[in-house]
Amino acid sequence: MRLHSTTSADGVTEQLFTLGEIPGVLWTPDGATGPRPLILIGHGGGQHKKAPGVVARARLFAAGGGFAVASADAPNHGERPQEERFSRIAAQNRARMAAGEDTASLVAALHELVAGQVIAEWQAVVTALQQLSQVGDGPVGYWGVSMGAGLGLPFVAAEPRVRAAVLGLAGSPGLAATAARITVPVQFLVQWDDERIPRDQSLAVFEALGSAEKTLHASPGSHMDLPRSEADDSLRFFARQLR
Amino acid sequence: MRLHSTTSADGVTEQLFTLGEIPGVLWTPDGATGPRPLILIGHGGGQHKKAPGVVARARLFAAGGGFAVASADAPNHGERPQEERFSRIAAQNRARMAAGEDTASLVAALHELVAGQVIAEWQAVVTALQQLSQVGDGPVGYWGVSMGAGLGLPFVAAEPRVRAAVLGLAGSPGLAATAARITVPVQFLVQWDDERIPRDQSLAVFEALGSAEKTLHASPGSHMDLPRSEADDSLRFFARQLR
Repeated sequence: MRLHSTTSADGVTEQLFTLGEIPGVLWTPDGATGPRPLILIGHGGGQHKKAPGVVARARLFAAGGGFAVASADAPNHGERPQEERFSRIAAQNRARMAAGEDTASLVAALHELVAGQVIAEWQAVVTALQQLSQVGDGPVGYWGVSMGAGLGLPFVAAEPRVRAAVLGLAGSPGLAATAARITVPVQFLVQWDDERIPRDQSLAVFEALGSAEKTLHASPGSHMDLPRSEADDSLRFFARQLR
Repeated sequence: MRLHSTTSADGVTEQLFTLGEIPGVLWTPDGATGPRPLILIGHGGGQHKKAPGVVARARLFAAGGGFAVASADAPNHGERPQEERFSRIAAQNRARMAAGEDTASLVAALHELVAGQVIAEWQAVVTALQQLSQVGDGPVGYWGVSMGAGLGLPFVAAEPRVRAAVLGLAGSPGLAATAARITVPVQFLVQWDDERIPRDQSLAVFEALGSAEKTLHASPGSHMDLPRSEADDSLRFFARQLR
């Protein structure tokens, strides 16, 4: 892992890194020494490691909970090259969205295209970050909605270092099957008027989760309208589960 | 209003009162002076003003949030006489529950039997308690699930002093119609495996709520298994909405 520029603002240090071809960011409280839980944030489709929603949550978790927080560009996103096959499906997806048509099957295809690769990448990122003295090998949390859940559900199911996850804004029969393999505590977020995810598919993912401890939080509004209070709830959830 | 015995434990003062024929309890932080928001807790069916779940939440809200908290025996409950008609329906209801049969229509009948009366009673209780210097006429919150929501939904819809409510474990077409008249922020609690309330009826009440700000919190488990963490969430919700 190569570490790049370090900056600090409002009590949080931000450190850019690359691991092989994966560009990422690590946020820690200023002056952090010694081990602490690490929260990995998976960004949404078309977004990247420093999308505003990712940065806002990362800073909240680092400053408010003392956590180490990381995110990385998913394959075909951010600073990474886009494969032709991915670009083609993504363009179809945007056209269908613009036409108000159902995009569920295309979205599932997009996520399947990268899910296998991204699980191995995120496992490597966790392993590399946990070598840093200000991270250490404590418990890991995962936060991701939309594509961050489409990729996060298989990641959380596969990775035993993850002890708690906030997931949501995602639903498909395939994801429900994956959810059944998850056993760690989960907070699952649903937007009640989500124009992209059929409500019954969202609820089916929640229902399928194998976790003994799981909570569904549903709020009115569309896919992009996740209320700010849910970020505070996520912080409290991680503080309870990872500390 | 007549005030009876006052006791104190763990920083919370408990004051029994009667207003006309209504026996009630007021909890305030020890030594409380001056106005503060008042949270009314509606107990469940077959329970009473000092049922363990009521007392635990009342003490949490008073000690943790500095609120005044009150509850009162609903008609036919606690220390109050039971009308013959109510007793007959309640006995039918218990028999159906024991037989594992659907009780939704009987539960709705029980609540309708007392809802009109209880709204006027709770309005009078709020008016009387707000005369006390340690309560004052600040904003009012309401917390009630199961029968506490069956009666609470019409109460919150009717009473403009209520500014925020936690409701749940309740669902019927009649309640959904009532929910549409509510406009204050609501946190709505659902037990995903509730053996008494059909899930679609619960979700329909949440959907019908006229509130711009509303959140659904669903947890696995049966009607009586509301997780402890929801009590903490209720406290944070009231702190955000009433302070």
